[in-house]
Amino acid sequence: MNKTKVRMGMVGGAQGAFIGAIHRIAARLDGLIELVAGSFSADPARSQATATMLGIDPSRCYDSYQQMFIEEAKLPAEQRIDFVAIVTPNHLHFPIAKLAIESGFHVLSDKPATLNLQEALLLEQIVQASDCLYGLTHTYTGYPMIKEARHRIAQGELGTIRKVVVEYSQGWLSRNEDEQAKQAKWRLDPQQAGISCCIADIGVHAANLAEYVSNLEITALCADLNQIVPGRALDDDGTVLLRFNTGCKGVLMASQVALGEENNLNLRIYGDKASIEWSQMEPNSLWLKSHNAPTTLLRAGVALKSQAAQNALRAPAGHPEGYLEAFANIYVNFAKQIEAKKAGSLAANADFDVPGIKEAIRGMAFIENAVEASSKDTKWQPFQIG
Amino acid sequence: MNKTKVRMGMVGGAQGAFIGAIHRIAARLDGLIELVAGSFSADPARSQATATMLGIDPSRCYDSYQQMFIEEAKLPAEQRIDFVAIVTPNHLHFPIAKLAIESGFHVLSDKPATLNLQEALLLEQIVQASDCLYGLTHTYTGYPMIKEARHRIAQGELGTIRKVVVEYSQGWLSRNEDEQAKQAKWRLDPQQAGISCCIADIGVHAANLAEYVSNLEITALCADLNQIVPGRALDDDGTVLLRFNTGCKGVLMASQVALGEENNLNLRIYGDKASIEWSQMEPNSLWLKSHNAPTTLLRAGVALKSQAAQNALRAPAGHPEGYLEAFANIYVNFAKQIEAKKAGSLAANADFDVPGIKEAIRGMAFIENAVEASSKDTKWQPFQIG
Amino acid sequence: MNKTKVRMGMVGGAQGAFIGAIHRIAARLDGLIELVAGSFSADPARSQATATMLGIDPSRCYDSYQQMFIEEAKLPAEQRIDFVAIVTPNHLHFPIAKLAIESGFHVLSDKPATLNLQEALLLEQIVQASDCLYGLTHTYTGYPMIKEARHRIAQGELGTIRKVVVEYSQGWLSRNEDEQAKQAKWRLDPQQAGISCCIADIGVHAANLAEYVSNLEITALCADLNQIVPGRALDDDGTVLLRFNTGCKGVLMASQVALGEENNLNLRIYGDKASIEWSQMEPNSLWLKSHNAPTTLLRAGVALKSQAAQNALRAPAGHPEGYLEAFANIYVNFAKQIEAKKAGSLAANADFDVPGIKEAIRGMAFIENAVEASSKDTKWQPFQIG
Amino acid sequence: MNKTKVRMGMVGGAQGAFIGAIHRIAARLDGLIELVAGSFSADPARSQATATMLGIDPSRCYDSYQQMFIEEAKLPAEQRIDFVAIVTPNHLHFPIAKLAIESGFHVLSDKPATLNLQEALLLEQIVQASDCLYGLTHTYTGYPMIKEARHRIAQGELGTIRKVVVEYSQGWLSRNEDEQAKQAKWRLDPQQAGISCCIADIGVHAANLAEYVSNLEITALCADLNQIVPGRALDDDGTVLLRFNTGCKGVLMASQVALGEENNLNLRIYGDKASIEWSQMEPNSLWLKSHNAPTTLLRAGVALKSQAAQNALRAPAGHPEGYLEAFANIYVNFAKQIEAKKAGSLAANADFDVPGIKEAIRGMAFIENAVEASSKDTKWQPFQIG
Repeated sequence: MNKTKVRMGMVGGAQGAFIGAIHRIAARLDGLIELVAGSFSADPARSQATATMLGIDPSRCYDSYQQMFIEEAKLPAEQRIDFVAIVTPNHLHFPIAKLAIESGFHVLSDKPATLNLQEALLLEQIVQASDCLYGLTHTYTGYPMIKEARHRIAQGELGTIRKVVVEYSQGWLSRNEDEQAKQAKWRLDPQQAGISCCIADIGVHAANLAEYVSNLEITALCADLNQIVPGRALDDDGTVLLRFNTGCKGVLMASQVALGEENNLNLRIYGDKASIEWSQMEPNSLWLKSHNAPTTLLRAGVALKSQAAQNALRAPAGHPEGYLEAFANIYVNFAKQIEAKKAGSLAANADFDVPGIKEAIRGMAFIENAVEASSKDTKWQPFQIG
Repeated sequence: MNKTKVRMGMVGGAQGAFIGAIHRIAARLDGLIELVAGSFSADPARSQATATMLGIDPSRCYDSYQQMFIEEAKLPAEQRIDFVAIVTPNHLHFPIAKLAIESGFHVLSDKPATLNLQEALLLEQIVQASDCLYGLTHTYTGYPMIKEARHRIAQGELGTIRKVVVEYSQGWLSRNEDEQAKQAKWRLDPQQAGISCCIADIGVHAANLAEYVSNLEITALCADLNQIVPGRALDDDGTVLLRFNTGCKGVLMASQVALGEENNLNLRIYGDKASIEWSQMEPNSLWLKSHNAPTTLLRAGVALKSQAAQNALRAPAGHPEGYLEAFANIYVNFAKQIEAKKAGSLAANADFDVPGIKEAIRGMAFIENAVEASSKDTKWQPFQIG
Repeated sequence: MNKTKVRMGMVGGAQGAFIGAIHRIAARLDGLIELVAGSFSADPARSQATATMLGIDPSRCYDSYQQMFIEEAKLPAEQRIDFVAIVTPNHLHFPIAKLAIESGFHVLSDKPATLNLQEALLLEQIVQASDCLYGLTHTYTGYPMIKEARHRIAQGELGTIRKVVVEYSQGWLSRNEDEQAKQAKWRLDPQQAGISCCIADIGVHAANLAEYVSNLEITALCADLNQIVPGRALDDDGTVLLRFNTGCKGVLMASQVALGEENNLNLRIYGDKASIEWSQMEPNSLWLKSHNAPTTLLRAGVALKSQAAQNALRAPAGHPEGYLEAFANIYVNFAKQIEAKKAGSLAANADFDVPGIKEAIRGMAFIENAVEASSKDTKWQPFQIG
Repeated sequence: MNKTKVRMGMVGGAQGAFIGAIHRIAARLDGLIELVAGSFSADPARSQATATMLGIDPSRCYDSYQQMFIEEAKLPAEQRIDFVAIVTPNHLHFPIAKLAIESGFHVLSDKPATLNLQEALLLEQIVQASDCLYGLTHTYTGYPMIKEARHRIAQGELGTIRKVVVEYSQGWLSRNEDEQAKQAKWRLDPQQAGISCCIADIGVHAANLAEYVSNLEITALCADLNQIVPGRALDDDGTVLLRFNTGCKGVLMASQVALGEENNLNLRIYGDKASIEWSQMEPNSLWLKSHNAPTTLLRAGVALKSQAAQNALRAPAGHPEGYLEAFANIYVNFAKQIEAKKAGSLAANADFDVPGIKEAIRGMAFIENAVEASSKDTKWQPFQIG
């Protein structure tokens, strides 16, 4: 165990779990974090096998997360875990986060934060009553050019924002025959996924990205969620018209049945002075457009104005960084916040931001508002929290 | 005058008029059509100057379109104009088309066909009662790769169509200070433009393109039209959610205040077997996407399946053709229809299609339905004609 | 016949000839030129059929170009042709151009100007001894963004030019089985094509484009021409290293066996202040790159600095123009030069430039120098004219 | 220390060293390797500070690499380092690799392997006389789509390869004023960099990539190396014409003064059946072109045929992986080879390939051959090793 590192315990993510492996890469990439404990599976043998694979001390592989929090809390401060990474199925996110915080551990949770808005609001109270940090892996906010866009908009480079168009289209749920795949099955099952599939899984990322970059908040919506592939209980596609707190208009499109699309998350923000365009499929480019003037192609590593964007890069211009680096940026920023807290810094540096409890609540609220709005005959519905 | 050519008379399009010049290029490009007569302006001197510039016999430059139709009708069949190209301000499209057809001349009209749906329905009666052809320059249907997409969809290559996403975004009306420009002024004036600016000017192109390529018909809509730049009387932006006759879902976005966009018309159609993607800014490419399979890039001139697409090309692959060629394809197809009619062919070849009175009616109906739907609190409204 | 137009006679280009049809589209597109006479084929019946198809007065369809020049010269000045467009097989370009000029007609010739450098030098003498204009259809110089690049370089925007990389790659001659196609056959036959296939057909376009945009002249070269597909007598591929008159370095690549390439002509010019990049496959974009600064995307119709580029455009930004428009720009500029000459203007406007006799000579010299250099063991060879 | 992991010692790479940090990210990313020892700097204090930063046991931070090899060799097999990562200045690569191997440690060396060909040949003897693995970080071979291209070519999908075009253009050495930057200074100093700057630094990557993907070997070359920015002692630009062992033609372009280029490494390979195109700036796409057929876009994670390519990916299609992941692929494959060796496997799996001593020799030979060929008046020179 490396005392200079921020120590992580993981709940979930046994061998073969997709997102757990991604989280571990992200945690590992910059060398600031060490995975020292875990409760990787409800099956103790499977959990132990994972610990072995990962080279974790068997004594710190626990049969349950409850046990982990109790035992770790007993360890000396310089040994015990600093934070818990939650990568379980969704319905466990809330109870684990709750207990972790109540046990004094910071939490970095996979998305969604909770199963529903009510849980998210409870979680907020728990976080606020504690001295713990809470982070949520809205991965796409970790991209350098997203941070650059956000910075330039905050600096007024786009003027007044008039319209936000955000889209997240995938095609992987296009066919009935793929529904039994592990990743598909739980997402399409209301018991495990809750009230929504597409909006909850990816639409919420789009909403988060739109708010993050624009620094606006959704205040009303008109939703059209669809079950396109026959026989499904939940939405696999949806469009949501938006209004933001400044009166700005918006369009959010999400689909998991846009056959042939890989992971087409893209964002355009139109202002009265300039506009930006970004696509996750080529994340190191950010287009800046002006009126009757040539278009500017901003590239990762070249003349960036945002410190947060520069922090988020590791290699010189022209050496593409991608999704795992964006994910790692969430982790490294969270680790830096923990270090700052340990060092007694008044506040973590804004250039190392991490999505948190506010984003957790707005995300769950977005899902619930969209589902409700979609069910109504009335066009517009206010965006309500609680 | 060249007896082998189809003879055209033009109404409107005096020196300096933008769209008239474009129409003349389109008419001229393939050498099948000769402009032999015109009434280019309400100002006879200006009309005559245009005729001189164009090398038209002064005796066939008329002071009014009424006069033109009377005098041309007196000429021998092998001399008089075959068809009338209408490129006047919008409010004159209907009366000119009406009189032209009643005078026995085919009509190729600039878009929109009429000022409103009522006129379009009247025009339909006039066309049907006559032996004349009526064409409408929905230019974007003239692109070869659009015809290829339409053909492949008609052949079932995409399977059942699930979702249509069409967008037409421009930025040229982004600023108040540009509103006095000639092209801006009339479009923003309800007296000249009617009930809509953005939807009537470009949204209708997007709707037409979606229906043309998909071979589906819009049956219901939910509209959100906006006046974004302060002080305007008409919409300069809008999103319309769509339902098609098969239950297919759709999203149509249009904007004239998407600052920095040139003429971003793009179309995606998602099926349950394959999907297509096309963008007017790079019109010679058509993307064909499949499930868990590599993407195919279809290019103008390379292994096309559609005869109509092949007809629409002039140069070998890699020699880009563009907007003027697409426009010319409307003209050349219309000329071929006229020739077929002269030759007594039962019907013009489907591979030389031209948007016609049906598209005129659906276009005007789309505008009226969208404006009405936008004004309502109810989410969905049936698409109604008349 | 339209007296306001510039009158063209054509030699070659009978029905079914590819390049003749392209020239006619180019001549026709802007309405400044009228095709009034022709000798389209050595076969009088075929020539006459072409004239009929084109609507040309049968009395002005001639059995031979010699006859055409004699008879046209007898017509009144306001009726006879102003210039001759030469679209015959290559070996006839020189004798026709020679006789046309000696008969007092301007000449616009398809490329290559002549069969060899010697003829080109003779042609120069003939042109200089006459009062006639001579133009050569190096089509790619007609693209607006090429003119914009040339202008910005002339204005010093790139600083000192250090390196020019130009490429023209096609794949259509990749297979033996395609060699009998009409376009392939003569190009691969030394009797008809002369000493080179690939370099003479497309390499010379690349060399012309490099010199045109950079305003530099090739002074030495190192050539590696190849016969890649077995059994060919002439080069179907080649790379030529270049030195320009300022010491600037260059690389020119050409291939007709780059399987899968359509018409990949692209140009990069690197300066010590900025660099440009352009590709014919997407001709309305010009990339301007700087040091440690964002890249600029210049687009046709948006904030161009060059008057010649603006002249070369017909439609607003976002309405793509392509190869035929570039070709038409050569024609329209040549027509404007003729009009200027008729009007007694001292000189045609530099903003309506057309490649001429100098480019004819440099092109033929490039071919001969490249073939000779390729045959030698010595690396570098001076670029010699005559 | 994690006994399940492959244990790494590092020579060089003290705090602030660019490439050392990149190597550590690459080693860390997949969790198979643990950095347990190091001699990070000739300055012991700086080395120790680096060890502290990295959380390495102080007892395993050594004052010199000689000491490290002696002390580590004394440790029990299950504790001592398995391999040495060499990230020092170039002139030390050879002596460190030599001593490491002679001390029984596997070596993974930063590129170039040695200062010159002579050293590389000596190193080969040392490697062959040992039981040690030797790996070289030609990073770009680690990209999944490069492996896919290599696989498809090996399977004959391109037919006979006719032409290879490879380019590596950068702009960062475009200006004299940047020459004092750390990364620039040593590269332009013959004492530290040897006989070449541009060809040795990046040209050699291009040559390696061309041979790796095509499975061909360069047998002759014609080189044109240039010192473009005034006052430099070494080449900052160069073009090399190539012949491969099958007679295949090639063109290699490299530049560090291509102002505005970031890291433009791209590769095209033209066969007689199909062709491929790849660019490092968008590494998750591989274009496959055919004759008179649509182009295919192969994407990372979608229907790949190569097991090696699939091994090289971590996230689903549409989640871009980049340069660091490619680098990590070199590391992870090297670690797997070490594990296989420990396990007594007859040979490491070909699907976990790593550039090795053969590539080391061919790389150094390429540099020396190119520099020599450039200095000669004769066009072609055989590619000679030793």
